[in-house]
Amino acid sequence: MPRKPIITLTTDFGLNDHFVGVVKGVILAINPEVDIVDLCHQINPYDIFDAAFMLAQSYRFFPTDTIHVVIVDPGVGTARRPILARTIENKFVAPDNGVLSLVYEREENIEVRHITADHYFLNPVSNTFHGRDVFAPVAGWLSKWVEADKFGEPITDYVKFTAPKPKRVGESFVKGVVLKVDRFGNLITNLTTEDVPEIFSPTPPAFKILVGNQEITSLNLAYTPGRPTEVFAIVGSSGFLEIATSRGSAAKIINVGRGAEVGVTWGSAAATPG
Amino acid sequence: MPRKPIITLTTDFGLNDHFVGVVKGVILAINPEVDIVDLCHQINPYDIFDAAFMLAQSYRFFPTDTIHVVIVDPGVGTARRPILARTIENKFVAPDNGVLSLVYEREENIEVRHITADHYFLNPVSNTFHGRDVFAPVAGWLSKWVEADKFGEPITDYVKFTAPKPKRVGESFVKGVVLKVDRFGNLITNLTTEDVPEIFSPTPPAFKILVGNQEITSLNLAYTPGRPTEVFAIVGSSGFLEIATSRGSAAKIINVGRGAEVGVTWGSAAATPG
Amino acid sequence: MPRKPIITLTTDFGLNDHFVGVVKGVILAINPEVDIVDLCHQINPYDIFDAAFMLAQSYRFFPTDTIHVVIVDPGVGTARRPILARTIENKFVAPDNGVLSLVYEREENIEVRHITADHYFLNPVSNTFHGRDVFAPVAGWLSKWVEADKFGEPITDYVKFTAPKPKRVGESFVKGVVLKVDRFGNLITNLTTEDVPEIFSPTPPAFKILVGNQEITSLNLAYTPGRPTEVFAIVGSSGFLEIATSRGSAAKIINVGRGAEVGVTWGSAAATPG
Repeated sequence: MPRKPIITLTTDFGLNDHFVGVVKGVILAINPEVDIVDLCHQINPYDIFDAAFMLAQSYRFFPTDTIHVVIVDPGVGTARRPILARTIENKFVAPDNGVLSLVYEREENIEVRHITADHYFLNPVSNTFHGRDVFAPVAGWLSKWVEADKFGEPITDYVKFTAPKPKRVGESFVKGVVLKVDRFGNLITNLTTEDVPEIFSPTPPAFKILVGNQEITSLNLAYTPGRPTEVFAIVGSSGFLEIATSRGSAAKIINVGRGAEVGVTWGSAAATPG
Repeated sequence: MPRKPIITLTTDFGLNDHFVGVVKGVILAINPEVDIVDLCHQINPYDIFDAAFMLAQSYRFFPTDTIHVVIVDPGVGTARRPILARTIENKFVAPDNGVLSLVYEREENIEVRHITADHYFLNPVSNTFHGRDVFAPVAGWLSKWVEADKFGEPITDYVKFTAPKPKRVGESFVKGVVLKVDRFGNLITNLTTEDVPEIFSPTPPAFKILVGNQEITSLNLAYTPGRPTEVFAIVGSSGFLEIATSRGSAAKIINVGRGAEVGVTWGSAAATPG
Repeated sequence: MPRKPIITLTTDFGLNDHFVGVVKGVILAINPEVDIVDLCHQINPYDIFDAAFMLAQSYRFFPTDTIHVVIVDPGVGTARRPILARTIENKFVAPDNGVLSLVYEREENIEVRHITADHYFLNPVSNTFHGRDVFAPVAGWLSKWVEADKFGEPITDYVKFTAPKPKRVGESFVKGVVLKVDRFGNLITNLTTEDVPEIFSPTPPAFKILVGNQEITSLNLAYTPGRPTEVFAIVGSSGFLEIATSRGSAAKIINVGRGAEVGVTWGSAAATPG
């Protein structure tokens, strides 16, 4: 007997309305034995990138056969397709609006299907709440081990955006961007150690990280060693370079947010006074 | 063997205090096998109508035999009674303050009991936290299939408010009200297609919806087709007429909230300049 | 067969980021059969006392063998130890930063171990997210009934703070402090009936409670009997004296918060005009 199935939910429904409760009710009415796990319901309304980032940071930690449902769906009621994506390990149910882009980027073998088998939907399907009428019931039936190919045909023209990539704009200058500000005010950038191997070498040169009007020249190993209001760089738990401060909010100190440019320079360029 | 029992929780406890955790602990100590589902804990403090609305939008999507617990209880510690309501399909545990009114309205056969069997309560019962001491343990024991009649005698004088109903105040003028502003800023009114069949006829006349200082003259089928800042009407997923805008907050644009009057007029009246 | 294991989570991760989802994923990947219960994720960032208080109000209501995980961890990445505490009834997994102090205070027999068995950790262990890499996997393995002594050796020098205690500063004057402001604006103090037995005697003398610029002279049995804006004292559900008002926020009326001094005086002292 397979183990208890798990469905995770990532939505922009917030926690003040009935939307999340309704989605859970629909799933449980189909499969009362499923374990529903809230990944996040506080995605910024309509913010596809925020949801994609959230999912990308989380899904690989869940057990094999977890069903991840993502409902951030500004195009609900239009022709945008509902899709079911499958890797060897996991399944994903979402609108075809790019919200799975970072999964596509990370997974080699992925099969994406256009969900068309409307006998699995709630009837009638509304124009405004496919979370309830389409995504929840499909997830519920998937959790009862209905095969993916029962839901629709494979497609290859699914919507996919490319996450912003760091750019090397000179011999010793790399430009990145802030992807997210977390609860603690840490600025999570899109830069990894592979994008700026120079400053992670055993004998690194002097370097400068430029965000907003701030120059950062120290790289720490943990959040704590810094002095108050001192801002430093650190490799965060997702492998991205973060800008942080000790027990405070780097975002507030620097006064920047998501989308802010991040420049990294080193060697003689960094030695120049700012 | 019956399937895993489900208890849903709807409270005004918020998510920053220990109240929700304690309620869950008490339930699980009685029945560790129950599945507890958070419907909402962000009901406005003491707001009985908000809780009643939330529950009414949600409960029918849950499986048969779900136990719905509603703890919005401004009268805790007074003589207001704890009640157990039962339909053929579901059970409800709540204070007798009207919070189940919309369930009474929707369900034909409902039996309401005054919960008096205090050997099911935590002992001693505090004057300030019946969620912990009364409602949680009663729900826990119900989830172990203790029969409803074990908890107390049926009553018929339970507290019931009437939800605000649209009024036809002229041949071509109907007055309603905003019941709720959702996370996305959509204004959910108490008007259904049955209240204004004229504007939903196959060949509808010109019509105007008046909310705040705004005149709305278009009826859309989905949230998306509108232009930014254009406000339109739409039949929402709960069957109520909503005032919405494309990827934005109609509530902010019109600057009204719950309780605002909504007028619908059509025909020659609507043709008159506003 | 033992019943389904329960893990509770108390963190300062908030609900907008991927941190909570990741912790749940790691636990479920080790033990998909566990029931994960959110106690609270809105602890003020880095606020060890707030987390300790939350846990202390909640843990005793959960069933025997519940595993309580507390991740408020300003010292992540430093030498602070991960610990596993065990009473006869429960287990606790947390950083050794004092966050379990109120458990130590309440429990007579407690065994605390330094978690060193890193083969239970995720590998590699990051310097910034021990919730994911250390605490979650340890909880997951504990929920599979791995014995506590497999995780490390007992220690006695664990970090422990003393909760602020009321002080009797005169024959008829006791000084306390506000420990927490709850969702409803009630001020939860550290005073119990044992600290001021005089005002709870069968024939109590006149008394005054001083908080901010407010003098409180009435003691109520429930939240409701007061008139609007009238502030009164009440023994709350945790046994602490609370300052409350009827269907409103005492914290807003008095304009004080956590840490505010609370004086209680009685007899002739209280009879003196304020």
